[in-house]
Amino acid sequence: MLSVAVAGASGYAGGELLRLLIGHPEVSIGAVTAASSAGDPLARHQPHLTPLADRILAPTTAGTLAGHDVVFLALPHGASAAMAGDLADDVTVIDCGADFRLSDPQAWQQFYGSEHAGTWAYGLPELLVEGRTKQRVQLAGQSHIAVPGCYPTACSLALAPAFAAGLASSDVVIVAASGTSGAGKSLKPHLLGAEVMGSMSPYGVGGGHRHTPEIDQNLSRAAGVPVAVSFTPTLAPMPRGILATCSAKLAHGVTAESVRAAYQQAYDEEAFVHLLPEGAWPSTGAVLGSNNVQVQVAVDERVGRLIVVAAEDNLTKGTAGGAVQCLNLARGFDETLGLPVTGVAP
Amino acid sequence: MLSVAVAGASGYAGGELLRLLIGHPEVSIGAVTAASSAGDPLARHQPHLTPLADRILAPTTAGTLAGHDVVFLALPHGASAAMAGDLADDVTVIDCGADFRLSDPQAWQQFYGSEHAGTWAYGLPELLVEGRTKQRVQLAGQSHIAVPGCYPTACSLALAPAFAAGLASSDVVIVAASGTSGAGKSLKPHLLGAEVMGSMSPYGVGGGHRHTPEIDQNLSRAAGVPVAVSFTPTLAPMPRGILATCSAKLAHGVTAESVRAAYQQAYDEEAFVHLLPEGAWPSTGAVLGSNNVQVQVAVDERVGRLIVVAAEDNLTKGTAGGAVQCLNLARGFDETLGLPVTGVAP
Amino acid sequence: MLSVAVAGASGYAGGELLRLLIGHPEVSIGAVTAASSAGDPLARHQPHLTPLADRILAPTTAGTLAGHDVVFLALPHGASAAMAGDLADDVTVIDCGADFRLSDPQAWQQFYGSEHAGTWAYGLPELLVEGRTKQRVQLAGQSHIAVPGCYPTACSLALAPAFAAGLASSDVVIVAASGTSGAGKSLKPHLLGAEVMGSMSPYGVGGGHRHTPEIDQNLSRAAGVPVAVSFTPTLAPMPRGILATCSAKLAHGVTAESVRAAYQQAYDEEAFVHLLPEGAWPSTGAVLGSNNVQVQVAVDERVGRLIVVAAEDNLTKGTAGGAVQCLNLARGFDETLGLPVTGVAP
Amino acid sequence: MLSVAVAGASGYAGGELLRLLIGHPEVSIGAVTAASSAGDPLARHQPHLTPLADRILAPTTAGTLAGHDVVFLALPHGASAAMAGDLADDVTVIDCGADFRLSDPQAWQQFYGSEHAGTWAYGLPELLVEGRTKQRVQLAGQSHIAVPGCYPTACSLALAPAFAAGLASSDVVIVAASGTSGAGKSLKPHLLGAEVMGSMSPYGVGGGHRHTPEIDQNLSRAAGVPVAVSFTPTLAPMPRGILATCSAKLAHGVTAESVRAAYQQAYDEEAFVHLLPEGAWPSTGAVLGSNNVQVQVAVDERVGRLIVVAAEDNLTKGTAGGAVQCLNLARGFDETLGLPVTGVAP
Repeated sequence: MLSVAVAGASGYAGGELLRLLIGHPEVSIGAVTAASSAGDPLARHQPHLTPLADRILAPTTAGTLAGHDVVFLALPHGASAAMAGDLADDVTVIDCGADFRLSDPQAWQQFYGSEHAGTWAYGLPELLVEGRTKQRVQLAGQSHIAVPGCYPTACSLALAPAFAAGLASSDVVIVAASGTSGAGKSLKPHLLGAEVMGSMSPYGVGGGHRHTPEIDQNLSRAAGVPVAVSFTPTLAPMPRGILATCSAKLAHGVTAESVRAAYQQAYDEEAFVHLLPEGAWPSTGAVLGSNNVQVQVAVDERVGRLIVVAAEDNLTKGTAGGAVQCLNLARGFDETLGLPVTGVAP
Repeated sequence: MLSVAVAGASGYAGGELLRLLIGHPEVSIGAVTAASSAGDPLARHQPHLTPLADRILAPTTAGTLAGHDVVFLALPHGASAAMAGDLADDVTVIDCGADFRLSDPQAWQQFYGSEHAGTWAYGLPELLVEGRTKQRVQLAGQSHIAVPGCYPTACSLALAPAFAAGLASSDVVIVAASGTSGAGKSLKPHLLGAEVMGSMSPYGVGGGHRHTPEIDQNLSRAAGVPVAVSFTPTLAPMPRGILATCSAKLAHGVTAESVRAAYQQAYDEEAFVHLLPEGAWPSTGAVLGSNNVQVQVAVDERVGRLIVVAAEDNLTKGTAGGAVQCLNLARGFDETLGLPVTGVAP
Repeated sequence: MLSVAVAGASGYAGGELLRLLIGHPEVSIGAVTAASSAGDPLARHQPHLTPLADRILAPTTAGTLAGHDVVFLALPHGASAAMAGDLADDVTVIDCGADFRLSDPQAWQQFYGSEHAGTWAYGLPELLVEGRTKQRVQLAGQSHIAVPGCYPTACSLALAPAFAAGLASSDVVIVAASGTSGAGKSLKPHLLGAEVMGSMSPYGVGGGHRHTPEIDQNLSRAAGVPVAVSFTPTLAPMPRGILATCSAKLAHGVTAESVRAAYQQAYDEEAFVHLLPEGAWPSTGAVLGSNNVQVQVAVDERVGRLIVVAAEDNLTKGTAGGAVQCLNLARGFDETLGLPVTGVAP
Repeated sequence: MLSVAVAGASGYAGGELLRLLIGHPEVSIGAVTAASSAGDPLARHQPHLTPLADRILAPTTAGTLAGHDVVFLALPHGASAAMAGDLADDVTVIDCGADFRLSDPQAWQQFYGSEHAGTWAYGLPELLVEGRTKQRVQLAGQSHIAVPGCYPTACSLALAPAFAAGLASSDVVIVAASGTSGAGKSLKPHLLGAEVMGSMSPYGVGGGHRHTPEIDQNLSRAAGVPVAVSFTPTLAPMPRGILATCSAKLAHGVTAESVRAAYQQAYDEEAFVHLLPEGAWPSTGAVLGSNNVQVQVAVDERVGRLIVVAAEDNLTKGTAGGAVQCLNLARGFDETLGLPVTGVAP
């Protein structure tokens, strides 16, 4: 049994990590830590985690995190880099934050406005990368892993097969809708229930959203050439879920059949990424609470575009499920160990 | 490994049964059957159940259900009685329908307008019953079990301890709110998304709702004297969940402390029913997808009433989770085997 | 044309007041004021009020509110009393806050924990009061009016006819569900969209909710004898609406027919309170954005209880619509002037 | 006063028409008709329309529709053409259906699979068309008007100014999210509340959605050259609203300033279409129940794309509000008469 600590245990990502770890047969949950909520009973912040009802949140410090085999970081943006440096080298550290996701320091500086902390192995096992392989080969046995952002997970898995097979050429346009848990527990006026229910609105419009360079990075690796996307996120009136509608210009002569074949080849063997039967379309509700991603493809011949829609749970596969999947790879467990493969529907 | 069949596998109750059975270590899923959907791929009706994506729905007949150790019936009202008669005597039959829940034929006739089919062991293990025991002693080793209705589960668990301890005397008033999955997949105008979202409305008002005699039956057993409740259900704009606000007149001299003590005694040892810490109130979101029931008590001294609020997931503890819990008791497994104890929140 | 000022114009109540006043033919909107938001464009807080897009919020002071014929106060709790004292005597002041609603200083002290500021005319025109009259006769020509709380509006209108007609005797139990705008724009964790969507939970349980003495006061006036209610509010996953399920013990020998007759007599002539046709039940969606209240009655003969369900929009009839209706009475306009009588549905 | 009939009065579009017509000072509502619901009280289908509570639905026939100055058709697809032919020539007919929207019979045949019925004046007054004018000049005094589809209204208003000013060149990609009332009252499994709440999913993916040729038609007129769009609709968990995220490749050298200037010029004088202040983004909640459309523009310089987001209420400006606006133009009233300019928020 591995001893595991979760830093940022009072937030949505931390809560989802704990929910999954409670059910993981090879893990024993050690310290659960927080910043301003340190000292509170965990139950006050995560009333749904009954098995951990008696836990008290410890402060997030190197001291409380020490002594564990694995440390998950689910901290506010920018806090991972500082904390990671204080952890022992032989600890498996899996970061749900953005700090170590990008390999290009300039892209980091441009979008995050701070100094690049470094690059860890990128935690998206199903991503098609260089050499017609998948990213998982680079995750096996890793000690430091950066879990992808929620949007990049869905958008990259949606488009990578087409780029890897040379079927899509350029001009990527993505519009994604996310449930509000993606914004975390920050108390902001626009996140009040009365504001979000019954309404939809966009944000981060115009290319400045921080997940943009991450999607670029992933698709560029899949394609073998630089790819720059147009990405627009929107806030949807639901607690969880991301529906990513992704589009790219088709290379000349590409048919619907060749597209479907590429996606079948890419995902038929995958435990969590599912190309749906023809005629069935993804829905975030079908994957709620699971580590699954539903994908479907269509070709718009009139305008020569590929449309791919992907649905995931932003907290599960988009954050904590992705993190646990990486833990399994890092530690040599079956990649699917402890991960839900059924959505909670309706 | 027990072989299990699920009849009514295309509906919400059937889907929730399968979701839980997929994760049950002692069960192998055999036939999944339906009526009008027979012949369809299961995935068309239950796209969230990825491990069963290749299954085809068989017709619900004695033939397709034969040959299994356990049969779960999740059929439309009135269909269980007919089907149950055609199953072999040595099969464990667990019925999610109403047909065998009531012990009083007159109550059945009055509320259901048809002939009483019989009475099976009532599937609510945590219910305080005669002799200061719990109903679970009557479920161990049973071959035929009637799973409670979703509302009766929450309402009975909410009030039984007070009645069993003689703290509440009479005049029960219950108002419950339920997510719309409780109405099943029936295509009725008032269940359209555009009708239910952003709105709340009552139904079955005035004492005629069919769960009323079931709640009476349970509380009468707990109290040892006849209890008749006023029960009003309301439809809430959410997919899952029941919040039952239950009230009863306090017996003379009862204090808040004695009430809390009775509930602690009733539930402290229970795996699924949780009396919350003082000051914390139940929420349906905290138990979503889990077999948990959150309970909290308050005393309104001004008017001499006990108020108890219970939150459950209508499809999990309220239907399928309760059914699987009964399977465990019937077959001698650990009562909690295969049942989720963490809610999917937010 | 009357000049009107709205204090607290950045909140939900203030926004709803402005929405209605924009459409009121006898009113000209003057100062719109706020506290911490003073200096902001109104559009930043009320983007739906396009005709007032150019307005700038002024600070809420006696100075900015001076010089108007009418002042609406939509301030945080406790702030009305202070402000009201600084307004000229000949100004019509309509307060949406609680400060002047209660006539009993002891009830105020017990529930609000501060010194009673006074009592203004209670702004519920349709309430049956002493002498078999309605409260509206006491509102005509008034200069200072206290608008009822949102819950008391629905609960009082629901039960007053039964009490006034001597049909209900005692033991009132109310469970109400409200959309989250009722909590205002306060940034509290439990009001985040991710917390409220897909979930229901109770609050203020046990008799301590501040609307309790107000409901008591109203029903006592209607009954002519003291009435003390059990009131439990619950938070529902929708932006607007209150569904109040109210129950009282029937006096001996009361029939369903006599109940319906009492409600018909009470409300047949009313413009905004509608007893629905038999078999039709209220829904909050049907009255959204309107000044209407839907009411329906049922008799549970088994337990001798009257059940009345009322649906209103907590921001419209429950707050701002009620306020404008009072303005009309205070100033001698047609009582329905400027008030929407159609809900925005679906 | 014009006498007005509404055919299809039991549906969502018909209900929204009636809600607006009730408040229109120059209109008297005559026949309200339906097909299968003929004979029902209108209140059974439109309980929110209190002023029309006593109306009985008449059958939709030429006979019942005869004798009115204006007839609004809110019928199921394909039914308008048949009915329109039976109405007298001097009647103003305003069709909310698709039958007369397209001018190209081939486009109609391709997308609707039936014979083209004809072309009426296209009911989008604010659309920039040939000769740098707006479509409203072609609507004044018209007797037969085809109201645009809900998606085309938002998408066309979003992009037309950029095309008319030659700022956008090609490669339009649109992803729109709609509340479920857009699907009408049809009883389809995927429209059940339990299916839509808490979930998002796409439909009509790949270029086959029937609103595609309509958007093409509008943008081609604005641009003066053929435009073909990629359009993907998605179903959102809310009753009303459309958020259209529209993107087009920028012509060479176009700056953010020139884009904003073009939109200001296009919409500054418009009563209903509002370019938001810089930094403010549209939300469907802000325009709920109103005839407003909120628009905002952004330039993604990295990829050379214009992003425009528009928010409307699919039932108001997207259907019935657009229809009433056309009535005003057809009959020479002030274009804004009887149309709400404030949203119902929160």
